[in-house]
Amino acid sequence: FRDFKRELNLRTGVLNRSYLWVLKDGRELKLEFERFLSMPKVHYAGQRIRMTALNFSGEVVVTAGLDFSNVHHMVGKNLWDCKERNAGEKWCSILADTINTNQSVFSCSYFTGDAKKEQDIVESKKVLKKFTFYLEPHKTEILTRVGINQIKKEASLEEEEAFLRNCRNCEGTFHWADYDTLKADSAKWWERMWEDSDITIDGDELNQQGIRFCIFQMHQTYHGADRGAIIGAKGLTGEAYSGNTFWDTETYCLPFYIFNNAEAAKNLLDFRKLTLPEAKERAKALDCEGAFYPIATISGRECCSLWQHASLQLQPSTAVAYGIWHYEKVTKDEAFVFETGLPILIEVSRMLASRGDWNADHTRFGYYGVMGPDEFQMMVNNNCYTNYMGKVTLEYTLDVLERLNKKDRMAYDAFLKEHQVSRQELGQWAEYAAHMYIPYDDKTKLFEQHEGYFTLPHIDVDRIPVEDFPLYHHWSYDRIYRNDMIKQPDVLMMMLLHNRAFTKEQLLKNYEYYEPRCIHESSLSPSVHSILAVQLKKHEEGYRFFSFATRMDLDNYNRNTSEGLHTTSIAAAWMNIVYGFAGMRSDGDILSFSPSIPAAWNGYSFR
Amino acid sequence: FRDFKRELNLRTGVLNRSYLWVLKDGRELKLEFERFLSMPKVHYAGQRIRMTALNFSGEVVVTAGLDFSNVHHMVGKNLWDCKERNAGEKWCSILADTINTNQSVFSCSYFTGDAKKEQDIVESKKVLKKFTFYLEPHKTEILTRVGINQIKKEASLEEEEAFLRNCRNCEGTFHWADYDTLKADSAKWWERMWEDSDITIDGDELNQQGIRFCIFQMHQTYHGADRGAIIGAKGLTGEAYSGNTFWDTETYCLPFYIFNNAEAAKNLLDFRKLTLPEAKERAKALDCEGAFYPIATISGRECCSLWQHASLQLQPSTAVAYGIWHYEKVTKDEAFVFETGLPILIEVSRMLASRGDWNADHTRFGYYGVMGPDEFQMMVNNNCYTNYMGKVTLEYTLDVLERLNKKDRMAYDAFLKEHQVSRQELGQWAEYAAHMYIPYDDKTKLFEQHEGYFTLPHIDVDRIPVEDFPLYHHWSYDRIYRNDMIKQPDVLMMMLLHNRAFTKEQLLKNYEYYEPRCIHESSLSPSVHSILAVQLKKHEEGYRFFSFATRMDLDNYNRNTSEGLHTTSIAAAWMNIVYGFAGMRSDGDILSFSPSIPAAWNGYSFR
Repeated sequence: FRDFKRELNLRTGVLNRSYLWVLKDGRELKLEFERFLSMPKVHYAGQRIRMTALNFSGEVVVTAGLDFSNVHHMVGKNLWDCKERNAGEKWCSILADTINTNQSVFSCSYFTGDAKKEQDIVESKKVLKKFTFYLEPHKTEILTRVGINQIKKEASLEEEEAFLRNCRNCEGTFHWADYDTLKADSAKWWERMWEDSDITIDGDELNQQGIRFCIFQMHQTYHGADRGAIIGAKGLTGEAYSGNTFWDTETYCLPFYIFNNAEAAKNLLDFRKLTLPEAKERAKALDCEGAFYPIATISGRECCSLWQHASLQLQPSTAVAYGIWHYEKVTKDEAFVFETGLPILIEVSRMLASRGDWNADHTRFGYYGVMGPDEFQMMVNNNCYTNYMGKVTLEYTLDVLERLNKKDRMAYDAFLKEHQVSRQELGQWAEYAAHMYIPYDDKTKLFEQHEGYFTLPHIDVDRIPVEDFPLYHHWSYDRIYRNDMIKQPDVLMMMLLHNRAFTKEQLLKNYEYYEPRCIHESSLSPSVHSILAVQLKKHEEGYRFFSFATRMDLDNYNRNTSEGLHTTSIAAAWMNIVYGFAGMRSDGDILSFSPSIPAAWNGYSFR
Repeated sequence: FRDFKRELNLRTGVLNRSYLWVLKDGRELKLEFERFLSMPKVHYAGQRIRMTALNFSGEVVVTAGLDFSNVHHMVGKNLWDCKERNAGEKWCSILADTINTNQSVFSCSYFTGDAKKEQDIVESKKVLKKFTFYLEPHKTEILTRVGINQIKKEASLEEEEAFLRNCRNCEGTFHWADYDTLKADSAKWWERMWEDSDITIDGDELNQQGIRFCIFQMHQTYHGADRGAIIGAKGLTGEAYSGNTFWDTETYCLPFYIFNNAEAAKNLLDFRKLTLPEAKERAKALDCEGAFYPIATISGRECCSLWQHASLQLQPSTAVAYGIWHYEKVTKDEAFVFETGLPILIEVSRMLASRGDWNADHTRFGYYGVMGPDEFQMMVNNNCYTNYMGKVTLEYTLDVLERLNKKDRMAYDAFLKEHQVSRQELGQWAEYAAHMYIPYDDKTKLFEQHEGYFTLPHIDVDRIPVEDFPLYHHWSYDRIYRNDMIKQPDVLMMMLLHNRAFTKEQLLKNYEYYEPRCIHESSLSPSVHSILAVQLKKHEEGYRFFSFATRMDLDNYNRNTSEGLHTTSIAAAWMNIVYGFAGMRSDGDILSFSPSIPAAWNGYSFR
């Protein structure tokens, strides 16, 4: 092989790859591959292969088609159940279900090109086509494919039949989907997108490339065309985390979409509405009322198998409420909140009311036996973040209800009736919120991560030998949990999400207390610290924490990009510039900015 | 069938069973079975069947032998790997290994009787013999079997060969083991035993029978002849808990043996010495130094598969130290403590030193991330029991070393050298013990079960619906852990084990605080409360808690006697009378008594 070149054009969304194939006998074949995913027609993708013989004539056989026989590397086996395999002139298709999660995919490819011969190979999990081309020197032969992938999540029988009808229909209507038109339309889509979303950095080419790569991946990962779709921890780029979405979606990804693709932001929240029944089931299983959102999910059901993580973390539920709140703060889209948000808020508030408890002397309400954002404090009482987010969620729910009441008394009454909400229940929520215990020491201005945290044994995290990391692999499981070391921001996370609620002094004191205790063993941790460091005018520290997010996958810092992109870290990179250096704050009634420029840059801009 | 009768003679240890078998055609056959386990020759057992035709003549075929094909009900499969099956004239044998725990059993039976015919049936996991008898009216035919069971735990190759040699030798030397001699010798053993161990109760026949049943089972369960043997939670009577021993052994069972079979008591402690290497391995796995004893074990290795129980409970380790301490308090057997106890104490102290930590301001030492005796507080800091037992273990270890030093300076120096104990290490232990944090409120005289316990949400346990019990089956797992309800005594357990260390007032205050919070969801809980209630002159309450232990299995209170005896509860029944009503205390330098008589009794006695 010679002259290998691979190029992703972020401006058009087209990936080009080419090389010269030199055979042992001296024959040289130039191969050029081109691929793209259509952004306006999200189910479509295009692929084109150009073959040019440089110094010979002869036959070339290209095998192309659909191969569902691939092995899931982590599970070690194939997870597709292929229900239909078809092939016709110039096309082939497979209809398959995923074995564990029961999702249907219809995949079909339509080929064009001047092949001399076309032969089908149909196996149990493959439908392939062998195209034979006759090459002559310096004459380029082209094989073009337009592919379509349609998915169906769990659906009713009628929906399933409609899905199948659509799928089969595709085959007939395929030829109108012209490769060049699709490509041009998609490039136009990207052009418009870059006009809205681009961030320019003057004087730092590497980070300029990095942040554009991040923006590109955010749009490519989640388009928002499909209500039921989610953002997996690895997007669509890897098997790790099994495609599950975490509460990162509402805290790290949502802000990007709110400002760059509001439709997508709505659809992310819609997913939580669609899966409200599963969250209610989960609450029941945990002896709670209302809705308990899963820590990891692809279908709405809890997919995390560690009970301590799945049962003790309330932040996925409060994050959904936070997402609605944040979306409304920026968009002022009250109608969406009344329609989609309120039923969620009601059920999350019910869960919060039933999961919480009064302390022994009945003076403080709070959450016992929880794991906050910092997973190194496994099972604690009155986690500050959890209690605070519980309090504001209850308050926000009551606020939205009150606004509905003022705006449309009848709709309000009808809503309360439909959801069987009594005045007494609302009164309880107000009481719980009013008495929510927020562990705080006014002398030191420190919020206590949880009751008793301040007296925990202290570890100087800088003195942990580097070969002990990651700790989950080198320390006995319980050893991680019995000191004041934290894995990721917890109190500081609260101070970022509700930034305006705290004073500069509080932020400074807590940052200086908690940052040295944090080992940043989550890829999201540096971003949060970067934003807050910049706010505290610790510019160098902010830039140091930032520098690692934008090019994390491009430069493969964590040596695991092969497992897939760090999607939420990519989202955080965007936040780092917009919330960090530009000091944007969107948790108030109006947007505010407090811009600064990193010393290494001449300037930067975004829209 | 008619006239069924089953009778266990506690005085002789012989079980008799008989009935009349009436066939459809009117023939009547009287069958009498007799069985016993030899107590002086512990590997031997006898069985005798007497058959008497009442109104007919004819052949009867008796199939007897060894059947290793039985299914383990909980696992749902057979767990024997039969390596040798043999049969000869009047005898048969099987040598088999347990599949998971790799323990060898050699089982052999020798038959005598006037059978007309004898036929062998050898299958993969059975060796049976068919004996044909010719019955004549009112002439009794007898089939007698002497059985032998020898076990071998994990052993070296030489030990294994010796074991096999012994096993095969048995067959030759079998005939000297005469049934009647074995039976008579065993009855003599029981006679002597009852002279030492009997407890008489005047005026309460049911409890009289109950306590004698308990004493009988204690002796039958653990004889002390075999150093490697342990007391499983169900003794040898059931599959539940897989034969595993718990820390109940040192806290509940050991006192009985100390006073009734000191050799057995030593052997129980010897088991912990034998399994010190496994406990050291376990400590390493938990990133600790020294020895961490398993919460459940049959081989010395941790057999509990729940990490939170296996990794967070330090009480098995401190209970071993307590067992040595208690044994010495009563027997004054210093030599045993120097030889067997001290190496254990050193390694447990090392574990305690490495597992503990200083609090944030370095003023208090304690244990973080532990589960105390009360398993309803899953992962807590500075559990009072754990800290206290840690403190006294460190102090006792230093005390034993100091005594060795005074007695034999050279042996002391050699011991320190052999176990690589430095003066500095001893100094650290003393410092940790001196600064051990015992959560205590001098105003209320209450010990706090763990840091933060007093502020936990309160549950009125009397108001939990009865159908919610057992809570493990009806409440979501984490719900159990977030309030002040306790499963079994924790602070009160500490006050029983080190009874003299606390004042009457402290005991009273803590009893009245903790007992109402306890749901006694451990069969051992009522016994502890019974003993302390009697000490506090709450006689009726003490008797109420007592009444349930002595006849628990005889009357099948918990509806699960079919799963096996509640062995440790049986041990506690003995403690209830001796430590409870008689008020014996053995945690001081001399025994003391403070007897009272339950109102329902005329009197009671023990030796």
